Amino acid sequence: MSSISGLVEDEISSFFESSPPLKNNEEIVTKLNQFIELNSSCEGGKRRIVCVTSGGTTVPLEQRCVRYIDNFSSGNRGAASTENFVKAGYAVIFLYRRGTCQPYCRYLPDDPFLECFEFPDAKNIQVHGSHSEAVKMAVMDQQAAVAEGRLLKLPFSTIYEYLQMLRLIATALKEVGPCSMFYLAAAVSDFYVPWKSMTEHKIESGSGPLDIRLAQVPKMLSILRSNWAPKAFCISFKLETDSKILIEKATKALQKYKVHAVVANELLTRKEEVVVVSSSGNVVVRRDSNKPESIVEDNLIRLIVDRHSTYIKESHT
Amino acid sequence: MSSISGLVEDEISSFFESSPPLKNNEEIVTKLNQFIELNSSCEGGKRRIVCVTSGGTTVPLEQRCVRYIDNFSSGNRGAASTENFVKAGYAVIFLYRRGTCQPYCRYLPDDPFLECFEFPDAKNIQVHGSHSEAVKMAVMDQQAAVAEGRLLKLPFSTIYEYLQMLRLIATALKEVGPCSMFYLAAAVSDFYVPWKSMTEHKIESGSGPLDIRLAQVPKMLSILRSNWAPKAFCISFKLETDSKILIEKATKALQKYKVHAVVANELLTRKEEVVVVSSSGNVVVRRDSNKPESIVEDNLIRLIVDRHSTYIKESHT
Repeated sequence: MSSISGLVEDEISSFFESSPPLKNNEEIVTKLNQFIELNSSCEGGKRRIVCVTSGGTTVPLEQRCVRYIDNFSSGNRGAASTENFVKAGYAVIFLYRRGTCQPYCRYLPDDPFLECFEFPDAKNIQVHGSHSEAVKMAVMDQQAAVAEGRLLKLPFSTIYEYLQMLRLIATALKEVGPCSMFYLAAAVSDFYVPWKSMTEHKIESGSGPLDIRLAQVPKMLSILRSNWAPKAFCISFKLETDSKILIEKATKALQKYKVHAVVANELLTRKEEVVVVSSSGNVVVRRDSNKPESIVEDNLIRLIVDRHSTYIKESHT
Repeated sequence: MSSISGLVEDEISSFFESSPPLKNNEEIVTKLNQFIELNSSCEGGKRRIVCVTSGGTTVPLEQRCVRYIDNFSSGNRGAASTENFVKAGYAVIFLYRRGTCQPYCRYLPDDPFLECFEFPDAKNIQVHGSHSEAVKMAVMDQQAAVAEGRLLKLPFSTIYEYLQMLRLIATALKEVGPCSMFYLAAAVSDFYVPWKSMTEHKIESGSGPLDIRLAQVPKMLSILRSNWAPKAFCISFKLETDSKILIEKATKALQKYKVHAVVANELLTRKEEVVVVSSSGNVVVRRDSNKPESIVEDNLIRLIVDRHSTYIKESHT
């Protein structure tokens, strides 16, 4: 692997140096190491480990943050993919935006405490029949995955938190080598206001228009691939609203970041189909439209897991 | 009441004309009219009606929205205030940002389906002892408030949805007169990108910095007071991160928008104290620090309800 340019490396170091430090750094490292150890030992049954990122990152516009720029992402793709990875035998580090869709919770209504339950006698809670499967999945399946050490959930909000946590995870997974995977479904901000050039207090809404100049977030994928975890299998995502430029941009990203595949998806059709772009060609993956409960992630994760198996085999030869 | 200037009125009309229309306009109007009728009739027991707004509004940066500017607000203040208004006998129209804190749900953990429940035998759900009061409140108290017609929940996301819904509510409440109240705790965007000048597709992250020019959102408080619901009792909020300018800005807002009181709060101390700024002077309201379960909203709503009672009496003389 060719190393990244000194310029990019400088940009990345200065991004991290100027970031507000993670508040719970040590706690995260401890959790990560325990999780990786459990899943790498014989007792736990050695498992492949995937880091699934999910939801959008925020970019604060003020240091004492009142306003921020956000990327729309429900987290549905990340949650559904996590469930499928667990089903396929993986241990999943789920790095998710606070408040977004959680694994096993996709079928809950928007307002679950208003809609799912009742207390017929003020002592015993009951689940309404129509929601019983959804609640059982959210409670039993989710708790089982966590209790069995197959799911570690780590929340973020800002781009600063996300990138620092991603670095911690990648560094911790380095020794897992080809059996580790990054499945980068989070919607990461492309632009930010550098922390030091940011106003401390709330921007005044006195008079006239407001001009904001945003800098580009350095592309961390390069350094993830070249330095942090060079042997991990790596899948990135490309979302566009304009189908005409989607495949072209996904192909460019594949070449630029040297990831193993790029999942290209368009905003309006993303729940029906995606295109997996890789050096072996483009594959359209669709949900089974004759099964109403089918989702595109069922077929997508099957394909990704196959590719990962091939990658592991090839790494050992 | 002096009417607002033609210039402001023009700005406001052009904001609404250029907004993407509400998708569920008729459904909201039907719900509102039923709710107001129920609470204005004798059968339901004639109640005062308050519209509590809660959470932050988003400002899309692209028409097919991937990126947006958001205002930080957990919605805790609005949720806690709603509970206190219901306790004080009010019917509450809770106009809230999707995904923010809900009334009666403030004591639930971040990840309730992972933490609150268990299925000891795959058929019967149980609540863990430590969360039983929180779950009971979220289910029983919330459902009772909705079932008794004391709570109507209406969600929004964008500034366009928020302002159109606020106008619908204000217009529907006009005939309730002095017995209605607006308690505007939502964090409303000051700046936006006018819909028509907005790019249709996702902003390209090609190269170099991104410059965004944001226009000021017209101040709707003026027209709410002068035209939409001029007889309603009206409370607005002022949040600042800098305590030095807080009271000055709240006092200016009181004069400019002719509201009955402005609740001034500072980001870091907002859960401990607020200052109610009105023409009769400034009152500091604190939570009872010797009662651990006490919140500042307990004392705040008591004061606001008293002021509202005085206002109703004076309106009848």
